[in-house]
Amino acid sequence: MTASAEFPVPERPDGWLSGDEIAQVRRSMPIVYVDAIPVRVDDSGDVIAVGLLLRVTREGVMSRALISGRVMYHERVRDALVRHIEKDLGPVALPQIPASPQPFTVAEYFPTPGVTAYHDPRQHAVSLAYVVPVLGDCLPQHDAIDLAWLTPEEACAEQVQVEMNGGQGVLLRQAMAHVGRL
Amino acid sequence: MTASAEFPVPERPDGWLSGDEIAQVRRSMPIVYVDAIPVRVDDSGDVIAVGLLLRVTREGVMSRALISGRVMYHERVRDALVRHIEKDLGPVALPQIPASPQPFTVAEYFPTPGVTAYHDPRQHAVSLAYVVPVLGDCLPQHDAIDLAWLTPEEACAEQVQVEMNGGQGVLLRQAMAHVGRL
Amino acid sequence: MTASAEFPVPERPDGWLSGDEIAQVRRSMPIVYVDAIPVRVDDSGDVIAVGLLLRVTREGVMSRALISGRVMYHERVRDALVRHIEKDLGPVALPQIPASPQPFTVAEYFPTPGVTAYHDPRQHAVSLAYVVPVLGDCLPQHDAIDLAWLTPEEACAEQVQVEMNGGQGVLLRQAMAHVGRL
Amino acid sequence: MTASAEFPVPERPDGWLSGDEIAQVRRSMPIVYVDAIPVRVDDSGDVIAVGLLLRVTREGVMSRALISGRVMYHERVRDALVRHIEKDLGPVALPQIPASPQPFTVAEYFPTPGVTAYHDPRQHAVSLAYVVPVLGDCLPQHDAIDLAWLTPEEACAEQVQVEMNGGQGVLLRQAMAHVGRL
Repeated sequence: MTASAEFPVPERPDGWLSGDEIAQVRRSMPIVYVDAIPVRVDDSGDVIAVGLLLRVTREGVMSRALISGRVMYHERVRDALVRHIEKDLGPVALPQIPASPQPFTVAEYFPTPGVTAYHDPRQHAVSLAYVVPVLGDCLPQHDAIDLAWLTPEEACAEQVQVEMNGGQGVLLRQAMAHVGRL
Repeated sequence: MTASAEFPVPERPDGWLSGDEIAQVRRSMPIVYVDAIPVRVDDSGDVIAVGLLLRVTREGVMSRALISGRVMYHERVRDALVRHIEKDLGPVALPQIPASPQPFTVAEYFPTPGVTAYHDPRQHAVSLAYVVPVLGDCLPQHDAIDLAWLTPEEACAEQVQVEMNGGQGVLLRQAMAHVGRL
Repeated sequence: MTASAEFPVPERPDGWLSGDEIAQVRRSMPIVYVDAIPVRVDDSGDVIAVGLLLRVTREGVMSRALISGRVMYHERVRDALVRHIEKDLGPVALPQIPASPQPFTVAEYFPTPGVTAYHDPRQHAVSLAYVVPVLGDCLPQHDAIDLAWLTPEEACAEQVQVEMNGGQGVLLRQAMAHVGRL
Repeated sequence: MTASAEFPVPERPDGWLSGDEIAQVRRSMPIVYVDAIPVRVDDSGDVIAVGLLLRVTREGVMSRALISGRVMYHERVRDALVRHIEKDLGPVALPQIPASPQPFTVAEYFPTPGVTAYHDPRQHAVSLAYVVPVLGDCLPQHDAIDLAWLTPEEACAEQVQVEMNGGQGVLLRQAMAHVGRL
């Protein structure tokens, strides 16, 4: 999950919660998330590369991440996917959001490690996960220092997996299993 | 969606929200839900009947409903499915919760009608929808006055569809499409 | 299913079967098929139109059809999808073949009507069905006299459904259910 | 894929092919298959064990296998699943065939290695793959010398994977990814 601030002021609707209230909500109920695995495909739809964001954590450790973020109030899941992909890959990535809302899996990030394969110390997030082909130019934004395109084999290799946090390495391998490239 | 109270006192974890705060949360962020379509199947897994709850709305109108309810903080989606099915069908329904967390669709209930096919005036709910075969005895509980088993054809017929609210008729037909019985 | 000849000479590999042998195979074992539902989507992936081929049957009746055809020996499913879409929509349709081989359903066309919702008097076909967004120009080819783009609502309406044969109307509605546009 | 004879005399319908003709068909067109991954689940549907058949190949090597076999002419996919599961696990395995025909993936076994992750030197098989919970007693039949129940973690471990042939190890891991137990 991204470490970026996710409740920015401009998106706050009427009756929105204060910072303290948000913190309390995050300890009180599950939060709706989306995870997107950006991929490059060939003309027959076969995945040839997976895009991973390179970030430096607060502790100064390099980590690789998927595109991940909250679904806002009164926002459709598909619009949340577009928003988060544009936020992380820039405005001309041309993501091909799936026509169906059926995710390939649901990643349940628990604040307690070990309940599921996914973990987020800040909250209980229920994340709908999608593989999203991107056709345009992708430029890492904000806190990401690079965007690396790896083959499915490289993405599933141990040295990449250990650089991913909170179970996103597992989710990435689930995505590759789903597209037949495990 | 069920009209029953959904934030009962015994399930309230530490740091839980008051009634006013809950109302504010419901106007501020999407709530994680599950929808279950209980079915009877034959030996080869083919759906032969769909279970619909019969309820009387606050306005005194008869309505038919799916099993629907919130996912609690620190509760897995599959445990929420078990809890809501037992709540509505009793403790010996023997639901066969799907092995995979992949829902057949995601129903986005918006407080504003017309944004999606689903509507809930109380909240923005993002609901993971599953078809769940039940093997045991099912007895309607609490506010449901009956549980009717209909064939897929009957369930999709106009006279049943008009008795369903908030887009659950659409969701039911989507479920029948998914199991090849539209 | 398309009425076009489907075992053309140029695609015949070594050891291929004669016409008589093919006819016997079609009475002897299920044939692997793909069905494609071509769609136009908006920037957030929402389906806004469905493409239906207009054909005249041998009996001189107008009918509407999906893109449908056989998977060849030593051909991947995704390559069969590309081939049949290009055959019916032309070489610049730019189909976005799904990254995952998971079909939204499997349509089992039986030579005997009534076993399933699908029927093909010539054969037992097991067809993997996919929704395929197309980004380019689509021109009906060969035996199709037109390609009509309908809204999901129009495509599911009774007057269109009656113009479809062999259960393809059901398959089309299943596709719309899958993309949340039933 | 099972090494057992798969075109037995009693299942031969009218007009069925001779042995020579079958061999020619297998070199001429893809064959419809099903793969079943038998699992034990707990009360909330979570997979706790995977069943693998232990066989001795013609070369005298021990191998582990999934349940796999052909779909017959005029046989529904769900009936083929029941038949092959009963053939391999006995008549009281009580398989819970999925209500939906949507497979979790399609495994394309090619006679040429390397085209896909799956390989079958005898034929081009297009196999619909399903995870199937079994509730009853399972007894290995015929050519299987044992049925081993492994945890998902054990099933995905290298020492088990190397004992599987034709890409079934990959398919098994895809199944575990699908049920959230990779």
